[in-house]
Amino acid sequence: MEEKTLSELLSEKVGEKDFKTLRALLHETNPVDVAEALAELPEREMTVCFRMLDKDTASEVFSGMEPDAQELLIRSLSDKELKEIVDDMWTDDAADLVEEMPANVVSRILAAASPETRKSINELLRYPEDSVGSIMTPDYVSLKETMTVDEALAHIRRVGLDKETVYTCYVTDARKLIGVVSARSLLIADGSAPIAGLMHRNFVSLNTDDDREVAAAEIKKYGLIALPAVDKEGRLVGIVTVDDAIEVLEEETTEDMEIMAAISPSEKPYLKTGVLETWKQRIPWLLLLMVSATFTGMIISGFEEALAACTALTAFIPMLMDTGGNSGSQSSVTIIRALALGDVTPKDVLTVVGKELRVAALCGLTLAAANFVKIVLVEMLLFKSLDFTPQGFLVVTAVCLTLMITILFAKLIGCTLPIAAKALKLDPAVMASPFITTAVDAISLIVYFFISTQILKL
Amino acid sequence: MEEKTLSELLSEKVGEKDFKTLRALLHETNPVDVAEALAELPEREMTVCFRMLDKDTASEVFSGMEPDAQELLIRSLSDKELKEIVDDMWTDDAADLVEEMPANVVSRILAAASPETRKSINELLRYPEDSVGSIMTPDYVSLKETMTVDEALAHIRRVGLDKETVYTCYVTDARKLIGVVSARSLLIADGSAPIAGLMHRNFVSLNTDDDREVAAAEIKKYGLIALPAVDKEGRLVGIVTVDDAIEVLEEETTEDMEIMAAISPSEKPYLKTGVLETWKQRIPWLLLLMVSATFTGMIISGFEEALAACTALTAFIPMLMDTGGNSGSQSSVTIIRALALGDVTPKDVLTVVGKELRVAALCGLTLAAANFVKIVLVEMLLFKSLDFTPQGFLVVTAVCLTLMITILFAKLIGCTLPIAAKALKLDPAVMASPFITTAVDAISLIVYFFISTQILKL
Repeated sequence: MEEKTLSELLSEKVGEKDFKTLRALLHETNPVDVAEALAELPEREMTVCFRMLDKDTASEVFSGMEPDAQELLIRSLSDKELKEIVDDMWTDDAADLVEEMPANVVSRILAAASPETRKSINELLRYPEDSVGSIMTPDYVSLKETMTVDEALAHIRRVGLDKETVYTCYVTDARKLIGVVSARSLLIADGSAPIAGLMHRNFVSLNTDDDREVAAAEIKKYGLIALPAVDKEGRLVGIVTVDDAIEVLEEETTEDMEIMAAISPSEKPYLKTGVLETWKQRIPWLLLLMVSATFTGMIISGFEEALAACTALTAFIPMLMDTGGNSGSQSSVTIIRALALGDVTPKDVLTVVGKELRVAALCGLTLAAANFVKIVLVEMLLFKSLDFTPQGFLVVTAVCLTLMITILFAKLIGCTLPIAAKALKLDPAVMASPFITTAVDAISLIVYFFISTQILKL
Repeated sequence: MEEKTLSELLSEKVGEKDFKTLRALLHETNPVDVAEALAELPEREMTVCFRMLDKDTASEVFSGMEPDAQELLIRSLSDKELKEIVDDMWTDDAADLVEEMPANVVSRILAAASPETRKSINELLRYPEDSVGSIMTPDYVSLKETMTVDEALAHIRRVGLDKETVYTCYVTDARKLIGVVSARSLLIADGSAPIAGLMHRNFVSLNTDDDREVAAAEIKKYGLIALPAVDKEGRLVGIVTVDDAIEVLEEETTEDMEIMAAISPSEKPYLKTGVLETWKQRIPWLLLLMVSATFTGMIISGFEEALAACTALTAFIPMLMDTGGNSGSQSSVTIIRALALGDVTPKDVLTVVGKELRVAALCGLTLAAANFVKIVLVEMLLFKSLDFTPQGFLVVTAVCLTLMITILFAKLIGCTLPIAAKALKLDPAVMASPFITTAVDAISLIVYFFISTQILKL
């Protein structure tokens, strides 16, 4: 709870007008923690504290705040103060800010920014959402292959403060990206060595129009600190840094989880989303699934006579439906995640089906055996809700057989639907529990009624 | 499919004994891609290609391979070759290797390693699983505060090649961590400036016994490239780098998803897990959930008479159960993810409940209305499976009322159970769909039978 103490401390010092301690406190705290603490203060105190910040940390603190706190701050800053912050922010953060703010605030921001910054922001805003261009920053270090290591280091010393990373440098020729060199190799190499000999010509790069998910995946795969993004002509236009990649990975995972739980994904944190908005995210899927669940009802209606003739059958419907649904979800979630991580690709479909069917057979046998024992002990002998007669045993047989067949179908559907979706370039996450459950419900009932009418001769 | 071409190309060149092209090909390809391509080759070709690698990339390629390929390679390497690779690997990767290999291979690895490496590996292996110590590496750059920038840069030049990162350097005094300084500030600062004036004394650090999830979360939060880990006396013993943090984040997410789908988590990729192992991950939960689902069956048995008196009621059971389950899953998954991301904490419980109940009321009304229209149009007028009579309308009323109440309960349970789990220091992910579905099934049936017996006077 250190953050809480910090915001309380700040508030106290503002109240006591002890600006010396306040400034010292703000100076020695990590900007990320300052941003968090400021967000908990009332508007006036937040503004007072923000004005106490060193010039070079102010923009960092500002970038770390949530949009609503940023908007409050902007409204209380003078144009001059705003200009300093905007020009000092990384261009990708400034572009994100412009995207989040209401129109009147945006025009103030753009008016405050230097012409150069304004141009860069506008360029970034032109890239499609979820593209590499939308998350990259133009604040990278660019070198020439004719430079020596000493010249390169001198260049980094000059421009390094304004670059989001100096640890990977990009070698360009007429703006075309031709090589990548790490600060580590510059630091270790001889000062007179030419960059051309140090740089890697076989670098990983992406196009600005590529999906941002691909950028995150490449950064993860190759353990990069930054990934260069080029335009269609191979000209370097920006870099994606590892911290942005982590954010993308987390956002995409959240999106996957939401889709898997039958929710339309949202980019806002839970507590910042309104009730109506949450309702809009959830209701279409509930409606769709409710309508498909009525097919299950129609199957039951079709077998009303059989159920009326042997009422004991009804009691097993929820267990069969739930167990089928759970078995299917296990397979679908496993496969969806494996597809997302690249552990499984559509060409593995036969291996996957073979494995799932064998697992399903084992699970089916185990569950059927457990179920048989349970029905005999609990339902027949303890509660006597099912007769301990040949007829009763036929019911048990029907239930156990249905269980095994349902699990086979459930795991088969659970593993093939996500792979099929992937092969069709759809999002596999849609084929998660709710859809599988609905499909498996129908199948389990059809199997159940077919088997029980046959066995019990209803 | 570039990787596939690469492994085919390699195989072709091995066949042609065109070692010059082979060596060039291996040299110009990213080690991560080489590792991937080698894994697809038959053992003999893999060994031939591996021996062609430059000394300094061999260990990098080796680290990037899967354990089964690593084992094959080790078995075909001489002790001298093995020694070179092990001594060249990052210590954390070497420790991981030792953990994965069978005993006879482990003793060869440890025998091959230099005494120093062996000691470091053994120290790392002593940290508990999932601790910061288990993922850290001792290969960091350590500086003294009395050094000047130039002295520090000279030190980095000397040791930099053997350090996992040189971009964050750690300032120690009698092994105690007293400050952190970035390579960026060293590069930008004046050569004669003392380190004491450049370093941050307020750094983020963790204890080796802390949870590795915390390390990943801090690296994400503060945008770090590496995080220092200290022992109980505050002595620096290792660093966790951002690439390891990404891996931890991904693994923890996979674990969460598995638990949410009622699967015991596994660390192995799907295709590497055997059928029996997968069965063991899945069957305990299926058994548990099957047993709890039988309570639902007991509720139905208790109302057999009412169902026999009005058989139309049975057909709506699956729709009510499924819609309740889906509504509950939406809430539970949303809250579980928000808890994992830190967007929601247990103290937000009242806000969350208030919001979920309002969303539930809206969803309930919408679904009840849609359901009413659907039953009248489809069941009553089209299929005539329900009578268009006052009695029929009483059934519809009972179904719609149940739907609304079930959704309220489902969303209430769905949002409170994960928060309760978190408050009790349990894993919120356990409180996901399968458990919610089972609980909501029982509730929806009790509500359904209570309301319909009252309304229909059964």
